[in-house]
This record gives sequence, C-alpha cells and structure tokens, in this order.
Amino acid sequence: MSKFFSDKYKELTPYTPGEQPVDMQYIKLNTNESPFPPPASVVEAIKAEGAKAHLYSDPTCKKFVAKVAEVYGVKPTQVIAVNGSDEVLNFAFMAFCDKATPAVFPDITYGFYSVFAQLNGVPYKTIPLKEDFSVDYRDYLHVNATVFIANPNAPTGMQLSLDEIEQIAKSNPDNVVVIDEAYVDFGGESAVKLVDAYENLLVTQTFSKSRSLAGARLGIGIGSEKLIADLHTLRYSTNPYNVNRMTLAGGYQALCETEYYQNAVRTVVENREYTAAALKNLGFDVLPSKTNFLFVKTPLVAGETLYKKLKEKGVLVRHFTADRIKEFCRVTIGSKAQMVAFLQKVEEILAEEKNEKGTN
Amino acid sequence: MSKFFSDKYKELTPYTPGEQPVDMQYIKLNTNESPFPPPASVVEAIKAEGAKAHLYSDPTCKKFVAKVAEVYGVKPTQVIAVNGSDEVLNFAFMAFCDKATPAVFPDITYGFYSVFAQLNGVPYKTIPLKEDFSVDYRDYLHVNATVFIANPNAPTGMQLSLDEIEQIAKSNPDNVVVIDEAYVDFGGESAVKLVDAYENLLVTQTFSKSRSLAGARLGIGIGSEKLIADLHTLRYSTNPYNVNRMTLAGGYQALCETEYYQNAVRTVVENREYTAAALKNLGFDVLPSKTNFLFVKTPLVAGETLYKKLKEKGVLVRHFTADRIKEFCRVTIGSKAQMVAFLQKVEEILAEEKNEKGTN
Repeated sequence: MSKFFSDKYKELTPYTPGEQPVDMQYIKLNTNESPFPPPASVVEAIKAEGAKAHLYSDPTCKKFVAKVAEVYGVKPTQVIAVNGSDEVLNFAFMAFCDKATPAVFPDITYGFYSVFAQLNGVPYKTIPLKEDFSVDYRDYLHVNATVFIANPNAPTGMQLSLDEIEQIAKSNPDNVVVIDEAYVDFGGESAVKLVDAYENLLVTQTFSKSRSLAGARLGIGIGSEKLIADLHTLRYSTNPYNVNRMTLAGGYQALCETEYYQNAVRTVVENREYTAAALKNLGFDVLPSKTNFLFVKTPLVAGETLYKKLKEKGVLVRHFTADRIKEFCRVTIGSKAQMVAFLQKVEEILAEEKNEKGTN
Repeated sequence: MSKFFSDKYKELTPYTPGEQPVDMQYIKLNTNESPFPPPASVVEAIKAEGAKAHLYSDPTCKKFVAKVAEVYGVKPTQVIAVNGSDEVLNFAFMAFCDKATPAVFPDITYGFYSVFAQLNGVPYKTIPLKEDFSVDYRDYLHVNATVFIANPNAPTGMQLSLDEIEQIAKSNPDNVVVIDEAYVDFGGESAVKLVDAYENLLVTQTFSKSRSLAGARLGIGIGSEKLIADLHTLRYSTNPYNVNRMTLAGGYQALCETEYYQNAVRTVVENREYTAAALKNLGFDVLPSKTNFLFVKTPLVAGETLYKKLKEKGVLVRHFTADRIKEFCRVTIGSKAQMVAFLQKVEEILAEEKNEKGTN
C-alpha cells in the first residue's frame, strides 16, 4: 500500500477470484465456466468486429440492448449492458445503498457482495442461511434495507421460488431488491417477469455461464425504466464505453443461437444429475442444485484436503474457508468426460484416505 | 431518476461521449479514433480468443502486462491493465483523492475529470489555462492536491515538456501526480521514464488512439509498485476480470506490431500538418497540436455553426459549449481522403457564410 492510498480503502479486502493457473493443464471445475465454447457464428461476429476495433463501440449498446429486450419481453429502456454482471452489481451498491440505506444478504452467498459494500462504504447485515443451507424468504420481508439475493444462490446452488421473490419485492416497496440470476438458466425461474409489477426489482444476469462468454465479459441488468436510468447515470459517469465492440456483437449473436445454448444447458443439467448421483453413491452430501455446479461434502475427507488432493491430481474445484462451509467443495459441471475424470480422482482419493487411516 | 437513487449521486452530471450516430454514414472526425483498422495479426488474435470465450480471462493479465513492461522498460508490478484508460483514471480519483485530498486540473481539459471527482465526492479546483491555451506548469507546483494533467492536453492538443512534468512531480512529494498520456504517441514525450524516480507519479495511456483499439477498450497505468498495488486493490474490489480475453490478446499482438503503428502514427502526423496548414490558409486559428486532432476556430463562422453545418454535410467534428472554447471545433485527424473531404466542406461553408452575409 502506498502512503497516498485514501483512508477510505485502507481496510478493504478485495474479492479473490477462482484460480486461473497457467503452470499446467487442469480439468478446470472451479469457476463455473461452460465446458462448451461459443458457437462458430459468435466467433465470426467477434472477429468481424475485431476488424473494426479502431472505432469506439456504441455507448448506448443499442443493437444488443434491443435484442435483449426482445428475448426477455421488456422495453430497451429497461435494460443495461455491462462489462460482466459484477459491474451492474457494483452499480446497484453505489446507486441504491448508502450510510442511510444499508445492504442485506445471506451469510453464505456470492463473496463479492460484502466487497462491494465495503468498497462503497455501505453498512451491511448478513442473514444466516437455514440449517439446510436454504434461504428463508421470510427473513427478507420488511427489512428496510437494499436486498441482494443470488437466486439460485452460490455457492450452494439452491433457489427460492418466484412466489417467494415476489413476497420479498412486495414487502419492501421503499427499497430496491436485487436478484442476481447468474445461474438461473440451469433450472431456476427468472424474476424478469416481475419487473413490470415491482418498480423496486432489479434482476441481473450474466453471459458467463449458460451463454459461454465468461471471457468476453458481458452482463445485463433488467428492471423498471427509472432504476435502469439511475444505473446508466453511473455507467456514463464511470465508463460510457464499458462493453467493447467484439463482446456486444458476440452477445447479440449468442442471443440468436437459442438452440445451441439450450442443448448446452441440457447437457450440463444431465451431467450435473449424473455427477450428483455418483457422488451420493460415494457417500457425499450433495445440496440440491439448480445451477451448473454442485456443493458437496463427505465425512470421509475434509473439504480443504479434497480440494488439495484433487489439485495434485490435475482437477481444480473451489474451496471456501468460511466456517459454515469449509467442509464443502464447489464443483463446476463440465463435460461428461471431465466429470468422469473428476469422479475417478475422487474415488482414488477416498481409497487413499481409507488406506492411510487403515495403516495409521 | 428513481426514488431509490442515493442522495450521493442526485446532482451527478454524467460525461457526454462524442456522438456515435447510426442514422447515416458520416466522415467521423469527432472521437479521436484512428482511421486505420488494427492489423490482420491483431484481428486473428482476437478471433482465436473469441473461440475460447467460454473461459474467463486471466485476472492478472499476466502475458499482456509482461509485454507492456518489456516495451515500456518497467517491471510487470508497475503496470495495471484496464477496460479503457477511463477506468484507471477513475481508480486514481478513488484511490488518491478524498475529502481531505482534493483534485486539481486545468479548466479546459478532458471533461471526464470533473465527472470522476463528482462521482467520488472529491472536492476539486480547476486552474485556468493561460491566454494561449497552454498549461503553466508553475500553477501545479506545491499544490497540496492530487494533480491530473492530460499531456498533451485535450481538447487543445498542446503539451508540457518532460522537464515541466518532472518539476510538478518533484514539488508535490506528498501527492500523486497523474499524467494522462492518451495522445502522447503523436508527438509528445512520455513521463514513463520518470516513474522510477518519482513514487508519486502515475502515467496512464490508452490503446484507443495510436494503437487502433478504441472499440476493444484497453488502457494501462504505469507507476511505482505501491501505487499500482493500490489500483489493483480497487480493481479486485470492482471487477477482477475487467479486461476481456479478446482485448488482452489483441493488445498483446498490437504491442508486437511496432512498425504498423509507427507508420500509422506517421501518416496521422503528416495529415495533421497538412490539415493545419490548409486551415490556416483559410484563415483559421489552429492551436499547435501534438495529438491526433486539431483545435481550431475562425472569425468567419461560430464554432457551433461550423459543427452543425459540417454535420449537415456528413462530417462529424466535436464542439464544446464551455465559454472559453465555444468558438472552437475539435477535428480528429483521419485519412488523407477524409481530411481532403473535410477541408472541401469547410470551404463550402465559408463560401456559404460569405454569400449569406453578402446578401443580408
């Protein structure tokens, strides 16, 4: 830290993204990416815009936003495009929270929420998940704070029903309710259909998971026109050309490739159910997932040990050190071959542990 | 504005980017883009990464940052990569300014500085340019504030010498001095060579101008390791994957294409001098430019009129309404053919004005 760094940020602990190691080829099941590359038409759209990269992108993102509006059944003025959904989440912390309006979110959820709160000097309260790691929607009724809920939640994979989301939005008319739907396409139900009824509801989605564009950085926010206008004010005061030209075109084309993505999602869901069943057979606890990952633990191996041994064997999963979840690992659902390899390594580790314990 | 918008931002006036009209094909001389597309190798690098866009980009930007370090003669730990240099400028306002440490910059400069100050609740002072629109470096000695200087300055195009920049850095050891070198490659002298001597010096550059990547969004910050570490703290607390995969690869490849960019810059400089001479012949005042644009006015036509009439004729230039510069237009230097067309339209407008005045 330099002596020039503002006191505001001296206590700030940044977010830790999942490892992106370059030392060897891993089976990478640690950052919830899609195992499927974007379709050829998306790559071609990216290339075509690359050839025009000397010209600024459209700051209004008009063509992309219009397509989002068409696909999601809203007006273009209800959509904001961002450089990954982290950006719109940060804008929401900026716009709709302050010293007088704290944030509230579950104790176990996307780790970035508390970072955004700290970054923006926003007081926040966390509400413990229930014993079974589900969110109790009743905890978020009449909270007098800006609500942030990942639905389905990460890293648990569990979801609230649309009716429960609606109860939360309805009971907090004077506060914004942000529903972060990064994983909704893998079995969840989107709250976008509620945004016309609730002016305080902001739904965020990402193209990083179901739409195979994590490396292109593209997210969207959908809500009432006034909420979106506030977010645009911040966007135009931060980085008006926030989404680059290649990504806008790739995102547009991705929205045209419905069948490709539906097939990809279907395969991921099949692989998820296959992996969940296999892990249960091996004695794992597997939380019910509506996402492209599983949150799992076993009494046979500690979470951190499993993570480390898998890494030694060339498989990356994600381990979190927070007390309530330190026995778990989060396993991204990849291709069938990747999941078969993962399960084989898990079996090896279980056998090794058994041997070690037997010989001690 | 929604009723939920934080009081912090209710008075915020966002930045207004240059027009990006889609209604017709303009000769676009209004946003200081390069008239030259990126070379084929850059487009190929972008495409190759597009095919891997399902995987997150490297949050450390390791390969790109190492190349920047090599080209600029600094250590990788002295470099930060950003989603356009606006991002690192905002980070600098966040990191190195606050209520106790105001910002200072010229009255006529990049319009985003005052927006960043407002956005971050930072008090700021502007110092008038001299009568000839140059920056007087003595105004920035011992200022007890964080200094932001675009060098060469925009929209004037004029520059301070490296020695003058050094005096500013030396006289403000307790404050950060940010030198925004968006346009330095067109004839300026970079202050990067001073960063090892002055721990308070941060230099920012963009790939949007000389490197033909405006639409890809790529900027860099170079400074002491500690300054850069502070900026990384903010980056990892905002958007750790801030630069997408295609842009990182395109930027890396752009740094390998030295000859292409040197030729492009040489052509722009030639076209600038050609245009400046032609405008002077037509009676224009032309500020001495070290950039890829000219800041010009004529007693024969008001700045706003010239801008509007050029637009009617299919040529976009930029006009600013601030009192001191409202008689000027900022004209990006494009290809020779574009500049010839621009000059022809200017001559037409001058003739029309003369006729109108003659017949009135």
